Amino acid sequence: MTYIDLGNDIPGIRGLLAYRPETAVPIGELAEVLLRGDNSLSRGERELIAAYVSRLNECVYCASAHSATAAAQLAGGTSQVELTLADVATAPISGKLRALLDIAGLVQVSGRMVTADAVAKARAAGATDVEIHDTVLIAAAFCMFNRYVDGLGTAVPGDPAEYAKSAQFLVQHGYRESR
Amino acid sequence: MTYIDLGNDIPGIRGLLAYRPETAVPIGELAEVLLRGDNSLSRGERELIAAYVSRLNECVYCASAHSATAAAQLAGGTSQVELTLADVATAPISGKLRALLDIAGLVQVSGRMVTADAVAKARAAGATDVEIHDTVLIAAAFCMFNRYVDGLGTAVPGDPAEYAKSAQFLVQHGYRESR
Repeated sequence: MTYIDLGNDIPGIRGLLAYRPETAVPIGELAEVLLRGDNSLSRGERELIAAYVSRLNECVYCASAHSATAAAQLAGGTSQVELTLADVATAPISGKLRALLDIAGLVQVSGRMVTADAVAKARAAGATDVEIHDTVLIAAAFCMFNRYVDGLGTAVPGDPAEYAKSAQFLVQHGYRESR
Repeated sequence: MTYIDLGNDIPGIRGLLAYRPETAVPIGELAEVLLRGDNSLSRGERELIAAYVSRLNECVYCASAHSATAAAQLAGGTSQVELTLADVATAPISGKLRALLDIAGLVQVSGRMVTADAVAKARAAGATDVEIHDTVLIAAAFCMFNRYVDGLGTAVPGDPAEYAKSAQFLVQHGYRESR
């Protein structure tokens, strides 16, 4: 049960965004730019970073929502997402994405865990400075979103079909529009 | 040394914001609404929550910057900030702010650490639902900002006078304007 009275029964972060439109606008804009803006990382790859960090933070709502949104936009679909979340080291992903997910995993623990060596490995695997920047910021942003969703005890839909439906909306309309 | 080439030598988060204006806009807007928008929590109280979470995350740049900005806007100044960061339980602050800082400390570890009991204590001390919401989101947002700043290895000014100067700018102009 949500710890505060949201005045709505919308699950996950969407209920919080509806409750506080003043903060919802920049939050939606940040998610839109990071996960869907012009980028040399595909939308599916960026959603996979979001899902991975959310899984590490044990945020069931965000991990489910972004796994579904990643699967909807990656050629390998649900299987590729599940294999990556289970073990980045052996997942069927590019060496570059593997190195970026390793950086995201360090950021999830603390920004202070990231090392010049981890960044050098990503660069050796072909990552650009902007890709490294955006990976750190996506991982950091999900450390915010996950804490926001769980810290207020928001409702988590039990039916997986809800996340697939939500993913279709996000793929089509993005993070600026509420629904 | 910063892990990527920012093309500027501006310290802390400001160098990152100058590097990536697309993400800087929603980040600045979020900080402005959370820390300076209309609120029953004073600007000084909200900066204190930001400084406290940054200290827990051991983010030297953010803890220094927001301690200075809190001190500039709290009646108790630097002494009140330092006593609070040293020990919330005995700090010269209201019972309500103490309970909200306790929630912020839980969010810093994980959103899943927040309990109905911690929220009930804040409410018993006079906190409103919006104040509880904003405390959770400020704490969560600083778990993002701290990871962003440290995860990219940004430069930290050594001279405390830099933070006092920066605080004066923030008090006057806020987080939307770059400088």
